[in-house]
Amino acid sequence: MARVELTQLIIEQMKNRDLHLPKGPVFQTAILAGIMGAKKTADLIPLCHTLPIDSVKVEIETHNTTAIITSVVKTFGKTGVEMEALTAVSVAALAIYDMCKALSHDITIGPIELMEKTGGKSDFQRHA
Amino acid sequence: MARVELTQLIIEQMKNRDLHLPKGPVFQTAILAGIMGAKKTADLIPLCHTLPIDSVKVEIETHNTTAIITSVVKTFGKTGVEMEALTAVSVAALAIYDMCKALSHDITIGPIELMEKTGGKSDFQRHA
Amino acid sequence: MARVELTQLIIEQMKNRDLHLPKGPVFQTAILAGIMGAKKTADLIPLCHTLPIDSVKVEIETHNTTAIITSVVKTFGKTGVEMEALTAVSVAALAIYDMCKALSHDITIGPIELMEKTGGKSDFQRHA
Amino acid sequence: MARVELTQLIIEQMKNRDLHLPKGPVFQTAILAGIMGAKKTADLIPLCHTLPIDSVKVEIETHNTTAIITSVVKTFGKTGVEMEALTAVSVAALAIYDMCKALSHDITIGPIELMEKTGGKSDFQRHA
Amino acid sequence: MARVELTQLIIEQMKNRDLHLPKGPVFQTAILAGIMGAKKTADLIPLCHTLPIDSVKVEIETHNTTAIITSVVKTFGKTGVEMEALTAVSVAALAIYDMCKALSHDITIGPIELMEKTGGKSDFQRHA
Amino acid sequence: MARVELTQLIIEQMKNRDLHLPKGPVFQTAILAGIMGAKKTADLIPLCHTLPIDSVKVEIETHNTTAIITSVVKTFGKTGVEMEALTAVSVAALAIYDMCKALSHDITIGPIELMEKTGGKSDFQRHA
Repeated sequence: MARVELTQLIIEQMKNRDLHLPKGPVFQTAILAGIMGAKKTADLIPLCHTLPIDSVKVEIETHNTTAIITSVVKTFGKTGVEMEALTAVSVAALAIYDMCKALSHDITIGPIELMEKTGGKSDFQRHA
Repeated sequence: MARVELTQLIIEQMKNRDLHLPKGPVFQTAILAGIMGAKKTADLIPLCHTLPIDSVKVEIETHNTTAIITSVVKTFGKTGVEMEALTAVSVAALAIYDMCKALSHDITIGPIELMEKTGGKSDFQRHA
Repeated sequence: MARVELTQLIIEQMKNRDLHLPKGPVFQTAILAGIMGAKKTADLIPLCHTLPIDSVKVEIETHNTTAIITSVVKTFGKTGVEMEALTAVSVAALAIYDMCKALSHDITIGPIELMEKTGGKSDFQRHA
Repeated sequence: MARVELTQLIIEQMKNRDLHLPKGPVFQTAILAGIMGAKKTADLIPLCHTLPIDSVKVEIETHNTTAIITSVVKTFGKTGVEMEALTAVSVAALAIYDMCKALSHDITIGPIELMEKTGGKSDFQRHA
Repeated sequence: MARVELTQLIIEQMKNRDLHLPKGPVFQTAILAGIMGAKKTADLIPLCHTLPIDSVKVEIETHNTTAIITSVVKTFGKTGVEMEALTAVSVAALAIYDMCKALSHDITIGPIELMEKTGGKSDFQRHA
Repeated sequence: MARVELTQLIIEQMKNRDLHLPKGPVFQTAILAGIMGAKKTADLIPLCHTLPIDSVKVEIETHNTTAIITSVVKTFGKTGVEMEALTAVSVAALAIYDMCKALSHDITIGPIELMEKTGGKSDFQRHA
């Protein structure tokens, strides 16, 4: 899960223009960037090996001026895919930044955290 | 600039083993991942075009249990390279996560922020 | 310019679901795929060299059961960028195919043609 | 299967020079571009996942002024690989265009169609 | 320049089959692999930045059982492109290995050396 | 296994600066370049298909003025991964060249050879 702190201006522009900014629809672009980013995890993280990914889902919702990006990645492989999920939300967050930066650079990405992981060497569940 | 909140255990392991964890030297690997990540910015961010980068520097220092990643990217091109710098620190942060996750998944990436930008359409300076 | 011959069923599904099919919004995804594909031209075409692209635009409109994809690519470089434009529309067409193929494989891509080119060694204008 | 409509001039040049044009042997280059392009399918098509490909074959023959590109892709995976085959012939067609465009831009790519598919969710056989 | 020491058997097979081995025409494939490899230099070598390459030529000739690969890379940029040339011949050599290894693994790549370099910070000329 | 013949000057500089040269720690960078290079084998070698790699290890030691790079690549797949190992050591060798070339271009890469291979169609053991 990644949070992106936007500004009031950016949120208003999104609403006024049906989620469109100068560079086009922000969240749909970010979702695709996240999905494609997950496929590049092994290319980006030096010691990650290429894993067969079965599905990647990326969703974005807003709470006030915060965009909340969540990703669910599934694999039939025996290794965890938490890096793929974290890469997906990180790249989606960067794509949001890129599309909104013409309005303001006062955007903050993070926290980016693993929420839950099952399978692999151990399970993980973040405490609320 | 990106922050990565690690745990006391991870920091101690790094110190005890001369900054080495099971997967190898953490920060040097993350620095290289960040430099190589900056070169992939246009490949990751849908509406970023490939820019001729003149230099990418990535540095990491620790304060207590926090790793602080900074990146300086320079170009002779006319377009800003803030996305390259933000991609560099984001990928470096993901690489740190990957190398430390065998010890704990209780790692938080962020905030990731632009600190300063000169050139391009406008300058930017983050307030302290 | 690339044409993609879809079926009546696909077109109806798109209209009924506000241009959404099982895999998501078809044309917006194809537009982004085309833009990102243009950036990979040198990676795909063996004897194309990497060019500094200034802008890539991809647009899609429908006439009856035909999706018509057009792309405009601009560069300040001295070499023509017709391969970038043709790659953009080809990849966008493949993305449309991918997103609609759950409904029907009876989809035909083409003709893909260069419409107009200015600059480089020679200009080109396709006859109507 | 993809067709590429060339001109009489291009075909004659190919014959006169033993299938060589200024940029080198056209069809052999296009075949390799197609094979390598198939491996990039997941990188090009946003919602395609990386599949383990067992073999990719690309063949090109000419009928009059038409180059006919066929590709056969096999996988032991459970998912269809029609997108890999269509990407292979599309990239091969673009490579032919690139190598012949110094002689004429009056080249048309298409139709590109799936001929036959076995396995995956359903089989497919194009009607003659 | 890179040398690849092949075996008598491989050389004979190449001659008997008009330079074709089971995987296809060896040298033409290797030349294309080298040209495409040069374009990936910045992607492979961590501290190389992407350079605008103007032309890459790769040639292969045989002396007895040795394949000799030479590459000439040109740029209008101010930085040397010796890494691009060395990457081109290295990748071409690996491609030759790959295509001949079904006949014998007794193949040796090297020496790989820079022969001549003009421009950049300093010129270089290898002594005979 | 790949050898890189360096110069006395380079070796001394490495020792004096704790294996650091102007571009940073040479061998650690080369090791990572090799590991990441192995993951790009199918992208570099036209007729290699993407294989699921289980682990890649790259090690470098020096004998006098020679850097000796060895790589061990493992897969659960049924196909040999000798190309991945050879690509790993080749890219690591190129990275060493790149980092040392500011001191001298009088560096020779090679021989690069397969030492041992088990599994796949046949085993292989290089004679001493």
